[in-house]
Amino acid sequence: MSQPSIGVAVIGAGMVGRAHANAYRNAATVFGLGLPAPRLVAVADLHEPFAADAAARYGFARAETDWRAIVDSPEVDAVSIAVANGLHREITEAALAAGKHVLCEKPLAPSVADAQAMVEAAAAAPGQVDAVGFTFRRSPAINAIKQQVEGALGPVRHFVGNYWCDYGYDPGRPMSWRYLGGPGSGVLADIGSHLVDLAEFFCGATVGVQGTTMATLVTDRPRPLGVAMGHAGDVQVSDERVPVENEDVCTFTTSYASGAVGTFSLSRVAFGHANTLRIDLFCENGTASFDLTRPAEFTIADAGPATAVNGVRTVFIGPWHPYVARGLPMDFPTVGHGQNDFFVYQARAFLDQIAGVTTLPPCPDMAHGLHNLRVLEAVVSATDKPVQL
Amino acid sequence: MSQPSIGVAVIGAGMVGRAHANAYRNAATVFGLGLPAPRLVAVADLHEPFAADAAARYGFARAETDWRAIVDSPEVDAVSIAVANGLHREITEAALAAGKHVLCEKPLAPSVADAQAMVEAAAAAPGQVDAVGFTFRRSPAINAIKQQVEGALGPVRHFVGNYWCDYGYDPGRPMSWRYLGGPGSGVLADIGSHLVDLAEFFCGATVGVQGTTMATLVTDRPRPLGVAMGHAGDVQVSDERVPVENEDVCTFTTSYASGAVGTFSLSRVAFGHANTLRIDLFCENGTASFDLTRPAEFTIADAGPATAVNGVRTVFIGPWHPYVARGLPMDFPTVGHGQNDFFVYQARAFLDQIAGVTTLPPCPDMAHGLHNLRVLEAVVSATDKPVQL
Amino acid sequence: MSQPSIGVAVIGAGMVGRAHANAYRNAATVFGLGLPAPRLVAVADLHEPFAADAAARYGFARAETDWRAIVDSPEVDAVSIAVANGLHREITEAALAAGKHVLCEKPLAPSVADAQAMVEAAAAAPGQVDAVGFTFRRSPAINAIKQQVEGALGPVRHFVGNYWCDYGYDPGRPMSWRYLGGPGSGVLADIGSHLVDLAEFFCGATVGVQGTTMATLVTDRPRPLGVAMGHAGDVQVSDERVPVENEDVCTFTTSYASGAVGTFSLSRVAFGHANTLRIDLFCENGTASFDLTRPAEFTIADAGPATAVNGVRTVFIGPWHPYVARGLPMDFPTVGHGQNDFFVYQARAFLDQIAGVTTLPPCPDMAHGLHNLRVLEAVVSATDKPVQL
Amino acid sequence: MSQPSIGVAVIGAGMVGRAHANAYRNAATVFGLGLPAPRLVAVADLHEPFAADAAARYGFARAETDWRAIVDSPEVDAVSIAVANGLHREITEAALAAGKHVLCEKPLAPSVADAQAMVEAAAAAPGQVDAVGFTFRRSPAINAIKQQVEGALGPVRHFVGNYWCDYGYDPGRPMSWRYLGGPGSGVLADIGSHLVDLAEFFCGATVGVQGTTMATLVTDRPRPLGVAMGHAGDVQVSDERVPVENEDVCTFTTSYASGAVGTFSLSRVAFGHANTLRIDLFCENGTASFDLTRPAEFTIADAGPATAVNGVRTVFIGPWHPYVARGLPMDFPTVGHGQNDFFVYQARAFLDQIAGVTTLPPCPDMAHGLHNLRVLEAVVSATDKPVQL
Ligand SMILES: NC(=O)C1=CN([C@@H]2O[C@H](COP(=O)(O)OP(=O)(O)OC[C@H]3O[C@@H](n4cnc5c(N)ncnc54)[C@H](O)[C@@H]3O)[C@@H](O)[C@H]2O)C=CC1
Ligand SMILES: NC(=O)C1=CN([C@@H]2O[C@H](COP(=O)(O)OP(=O)(O)OC[C@H]3O[C@@H](n4cnc5c(N)ncnc54)[C@H](O)[C@@H]3O)[C@@H](O)[C@H]2O)C=CC1
Ligand SMILES: NC(=O)C1=CN([C@@H]2O[C@H](COP(=O)(O)OP(=O)(O)OC[C@H]3O[C@@H](n4cnc5c(N)ncnc54)[C@H](O)[C@@H]3O)[C@@H](O)[C@H]2O)C=CC1
Ligand SMILES: NC(=O)C1=CN([C@@H]2O[C@H](COP(=O)(O)OP(=O)(O)OC[C@H]3O[C@@H](n4cnc5c(N)ncnc54)[C@H](O)[C@@H]3O)[C@@H](O)[C@H]2O)C=CC1
Repeated sequence: MSQPSIGVAVIGAGMVGRAHANAYRNAATVFGLGLPAPRLVAVADLHEPFAADAAARYGFARAETDWRAIVDSPEVDAVSIAVANGLHREITEAALAAGKHVLCEKPLAPSVADAQAMVEAAAAAPGQVDAVGFTFRRSPAINAIKQQVEGALGPVRHFVGNYWCDYGYDPGRPMSWRYLGGPGSGVLADIGSHLVDLAEFFCGATVGVQGTTMATLVTDRPRPLGVAMGHAGDVQVSDERVPVENEDVCTFTTSYASGAVGTFSLSRVAFGHANTLRIDLFCENGTASFDLTRPAEFTIADAGPATAVNGVRTVFIGPWHPYVARGLPMDFPTVGHGQNDFFVYQARAFLDQIAGVTTLPPCPDMAHGLHNLRVLEAVVSATDKPVQL
Repeated sequence: MSQPSIGVAVIGAGMVGRAHANAYRNAATVFGLGLPAPRLVAVADLHEPFAADAAARYGFARAETDWRAIVDSPEVDAVSIAVANGLHREITEAALAAGKHVLCEKPLAPSVADAQAMVEAAAAAPGQVDAVGFTFRRSPAINAIKQQVEGALGPVRHFVGNYWCDYGYDPGRPMSWRYLGGPGSGVLADIGSHLVDLAEFFCGATVGVQGTTMATLVTDRPRPLGVAMGHAGDVQVSDERVPVENEDVCTFTTSYASGAVGTFSLSRVAFGHANTLRIDLFCENGTASFDLTRPAEFTIADAGPATAVNGVRTVFIGPWHPYVARGLPMDFPTVGHGQNDFFVYQARAFLDQIAGVTTLPPCPDMAHGLHNLRVLEAVVSATDKPVQL
Repeated sequence: MSQPSIGVAVIGAGMVGRAHANAYRNAATVFGLGLPAPRLVAVADLHEPFAADAAARYGFARAETDWRAIVDSPEVDAVSIAVANGLHREITEAALAAGKHVLCEKPLAPSVADAQAMVEAAAAAPGQVDAVGFTFRRSPAINAIKQQVEGALGPVRHFVGNYWCDYGYDPGRPMSWRYLGGPGSGVLADIGSHLVDLAEFFCGATVGVQGTTMATLVTDRPRPLGVAMGHAGDVQVSDERVPVENEDVCTFTTSYASGAVGTFSLSRVAFGHANTLRIDLFCENGTASFDLTRPAEFTIADAGPATAVNGVRTVFIGPWHPYVARGLPMDFPTVGHGQNDFFVYQARAFLDQIAGVTTLPPCPDMAHGLHNLRVLEAVVSATDKPVQL
Repeated sequence: MSQPSIGVAVIGAGMVGRAHANAYRNAATVFGLGLPAPRLVAVADLHEPFAADAAARYGFARAETDWRAIVDSPEVDAVSIAVANGLHREITEAALAAGKHVLCEKPLAPSVADAQAMVEAAAAAPGQVDAVGFTFRRSPAINAIKQQVEGALGPVRHFVGNYWCDYGYDPGRPMSWRYLGGPGSGVLADIGSHLVDLAEFFCGATVGVQGTTMATLVTDRPRPLGVAMGHAGDVQVSDERVPVENEDVCTFTTSYASGAVGTFSLSRVAFGHANTLRIDLFCENGTASFDLTRPAEFTIADAGPATAVNGVRTVFIGPWHPYVARGLPMDFPTVGHGQNDFFVYQARAFLDQIAGVTTLPPCPDMAHGLHNLRVLEAVVSATDKPVQL
């Protein structure tokens, strides 16, 4: 406990920026007691009320409107970048150049070229931690399945991943950065990036992408009159409609070096599915599934029980699973947890890395984020013909 | 009721042949009372004990071992062909030539060429009904969803279909006709044919298939010592192992003339899934799903209820749904029914067609079965490049 | 197979009478082949169109309007009595006196005194089978659980039973025999009789009933203008409303000789629950549940799997469970079945008993039906004070 | 924001004490921004390592082993009492006498007499807030249902409550305060107190309790060798076994002034149920349910949707439900939350009451806790005869 405390800041106080701010606030309350509570230095958002709210709410000393104030601050050791994808590169490069540890949100950048530049910037700052926010790698249930895949279930042979959201379903919802950019910058980049990463978490390296098919169902959206946060159900809109530039739906198949095959279906216009990330893993010795709508459980089936009493088991996460013991104040099974907790565990891993503690698996680094973009690029190319990686 | 009764027979008394035999026995007990009970003439199976059991059990007058005895019998007016796919053409042609009405199991044939010949044979027998056994088109729940797609839900924009079985999971299960034939004759033909058909039931004509990826996980199987029926868990096997010739897993994406896109994942080696045909339909005004593991229900979500109390509804099939009123002796919701009932409804539709009654939608004809094979052929070709239909 | 075939008839062609008629039609198609198909002699119903429909539909030779025509017919060997409870005694006594085997619906009678008389009548006809229709004892899933309770799960310690229906929810539904009679003749007799019986199926003899609380929520109903069948959603009603005489809701607790305790909640006015019979069994070594809304599955949890992958298993009924192998034409897991099938299995057991075949567990006899009424009587008395049996 | 910050402390750093400590840490991060972050003064636990861990983890300035150090501290304005029930009275009386605001855990005390004394102590300190920890009243889902009961669903007619835990299932788990005391001090006091309170939250005042039946299935337990926390799966035990003094299972029925009836089943030995609090509410115009194993959702059914597409809806909690908007960092539906969050909302309500803010419903006071004990006392008495309240 004699370690110096780490000064942290968050750039972007929109939907996910709040989760980062809360995560730093609570990162030292989970797991082992070794980490000093980080110093909560500042939150920055172009829109001052968002920065002010998040700073006041989560106990950060300052609210800023210019991210450079954070990059320039000597009090800040580590920074989360939680703004639209198009801003990731510039801020990351500046923060790394200023000597900060950087946790940048996914997808790492809008293009492979940008991501490549970010990886080079990280390589030029070898003493600093560079990380990308594949938060689902911090899910207790997903890690519980991972343990089984590396154990009794054995390797994945067939991976089926759906990520269905409804944030874009309503054509009355305002235009935002999420709807701008070329093919692949839509649902694929926004939520497909998570699913592509999870597939590799379980199956290893992607070697082929095939059959990509995309559709845009809502072709224009109203211009917002105020600042739209997240999926922006509440902002006022004008009568003017702006064209949507990227895909609402995307589906494709994949192959892995392990021999596994994958099926992906992505949608941001799936009525009734607020945030359904569902994966089904068919393994050598059984089957497992996870559905984000019930984040604290998973299912598994294997040949253990006798046939007459065998079936898919619903397992609730308990203290014997990864990230649960002391990861929640009360930590028994069925107590419940959710996506916001994954951000706390991610923040803890990032801070531990900075502090040189190696108990938790480290966050994926920017090279990993670059790899993810290469797979996404392959997905876009696979519209015409199978692509090999 | 002054109509003459129809003489019926079943060729093949394996897994699905029994369902046909039972279906004829009970076809006149469902729905309206107009149809005279058919005369249950004969069941044929190469393996005599199967023929004898089915005939005795379901009340057919004769058991035969040679299917020609059925084709040649003047007492038989209509015949179900429920044998391995490779035998469909020869028997269908002979039966049609002999003046019989024919209900042939799916997939119609092992190849487009065979199916084309069968369609020609049917065309040459214009007074006879020719039908193919896409049984799921008789599911009350699937038809309940169809009504909504044609009504309040509106057109399907994204179709996601899984058909996951475990019949091939155990490498100790014996070799059978299901594991022989070239690429596409495996899980794609066996259960994928159903799913491809259901997708068209909801989305209309397929115009593109992309990204087909296949895998064979169990590469050889033991030679059976007795006659293996269905998925043959119970037959004795020899030490000798025979190569599996076709795919266990198959995944691909599709496009429809309507603009809809589709995602397919098929497996016959999915531990824990006896028979999981699951479809998710994302429509213009909502979402609906069906899962064959709970055959008497479906789910639906739309914008009807107020947001604070809205969510996916689990609907149990009741007498106000298609095929339920008088389709079961007690017919209230949650009373339960299953796949065997779909065969009864299919038999009833086939017999009604023969009798000239037009209350029920007719069975898909062999031209439809041919079309289905053309899509399957496209799926096989789409391994290398997108295929347009 | 040289046995003479049994002549069967059904008295009452209402909701459940149809299930009996269909059951006799198909009883010889299930399980072993020993039983000759019964002769389908006659169906009787006071309302001629119901008798005619059921006879024509299920293939019975004659339709009658007077049940005495059945009792008097020398062609009839066995009869199902499927009319309102108040008629059970008179018809049973007459049928037994006429030398018939009798399967009478539950509850055996409206009163213990009536049931006692019926048991005496049965005792006076020792060569005839007397049976009562506790159909859920024929459910494959319930029997699968029973096997475990007698095996690995061990004795039940706590039984929780809900039976929630909505047939009485709508105050616009017509008056019928179900709403007439004193306290206990309502939801308790109608569906509670099943649940009380199932509790004893699992826990053994009831020794105490406590805390009975009843409520009538719909206090009058419109007089029907036509003949109301079953729950009668479709019959026209008059403006005149008739008082409901018995309870809509009933709840109580129980004790068993084994030391087990029970919790019961019954309702016929439970919106959204067409027919939810749910039981939860807490046993010495684990837990099991059954819910009639998904009749072909059950759940179980025990200490078999390792803690990190343990949870409640959803088991789909397959051919290795009781009553499934050859109990359905296609009989693999998830194929689906329902309550109508339970009646087929019950009819088979009844006919086997008549034929002297002892493969299946026999139907509960009228003495058992009398015992059930004694427990129901105790439930009614336990409004004031605990009752010991 | 010019309000002085409130000094808070927690007495008892066992299972639930941690949840209180975390709750104070985060209470000002939720909902509106008006509340200054409370000063985290101290955590006390007889077992020093527990106090030290909780203080360090959640950022409290001091760890104490004697609760009097907290009661005596001028820095402390408000205190949570989170120790065994037998200690509630003494600590509450001392804390109130010392001028503290008190939030005491449920059940308020081991007896009505103790609770009465506490209420008197609270009455003697009129300027101080007295509260009891019925945390489920802070569940978003439960409050979402409450809104409907007061709105479209209408009054509850039949309440069915199960609370099934497995913490006592394993006879190898150590003796603790939970297993000591007379009848009613077992599962009834421990978890039944919550369910009795929730029933009144929905149905209003209890006027009758009937038919109480109790059972103790694990009659002795090993003496722990270390300090056992919560359900104490991890502490070492001696060979010596100590008698269990109270009930494992408890079931009874209830009546409410509104005319509603209730069914209760409680167990702490229910294998496979870590913490299943399930309520089913049958209301005038529909049905709703909540199950704590999925804390962020509820189900509802009403006559809104057309019959053919009607069924039970699964509603995921979103920002339009009580306590969700800004109650979580990311607050969209399916993001997930759990029991620990309920404690944060409870702490916020308690602190708001102290600060004179009236936005949230206040915590139930000790008079309410006393009333709860009176109902529990009636439950115990209703073993012999119905009890009226
Ligand atoms: N890991 C995960 O599960 C999630 C990751 N994300 C990622 O996080 C990032 C942000 O997404 P959301 O929070 O949903 O977006 P958002 O639109 O809700 O918030 C972005 C915020 O950035 C602010 N901003 C814009 N320009 C700025 C600038 N120059 N300087 C400072 N602030 C600026 C905006 O005012 C806004 O408040 C994206 O990269 C997204 O892909 C988003 C949601 C979940
Ligand atoms: N519509 C549906 O849901 C289903 C359709 N099917 C289709 O039904 C057909 C049969 O499949 P299964 O019943 O599963 O096969 P199976 O292998 O269980 O049964 C085939 C039967 O045909 C008999 N047979 C073989 N050669 C014969 C001959 N020359 N003459 C007479 N009988 C002969 C065999 O002895 C065997 O009993 C296939 O086309 C299959 O694709 C199968 C299952 C379900
Ligand atoms: N085992 C089970 O799961 C079930 C058992 N039941 C029992 O079956 C019996 C009948 O119930 P439902 O079929 O629901 O009643 P229902 O009211 O639908 O049918 C009764 C039929 O009896 C006819 N009937 C009335 N008086 C008659 C007479 N004197 N002679 C001949 N027919 C006469 C009526 O016209 C009517 O069609 C009851 O005892 C009930 O408790 C009912 C439903 C399910
Ligand atoms: N609202 C809710 O959902 C819940 C409420 N509870 C209630 O909270 C209370 C505590 O329960 P648990 O935390 O489960 O018990 P626990 O046994 O886990 O913790 C009690 C703690 O009190 C400490 N302690 C004992 N004597 C003390 C003393 N004289 N001074 C200071 N500390 C002392 C013990 O060392 C132990 O750490 C009980 O009243 C229980 O009914 C418990 C669980 C959930």
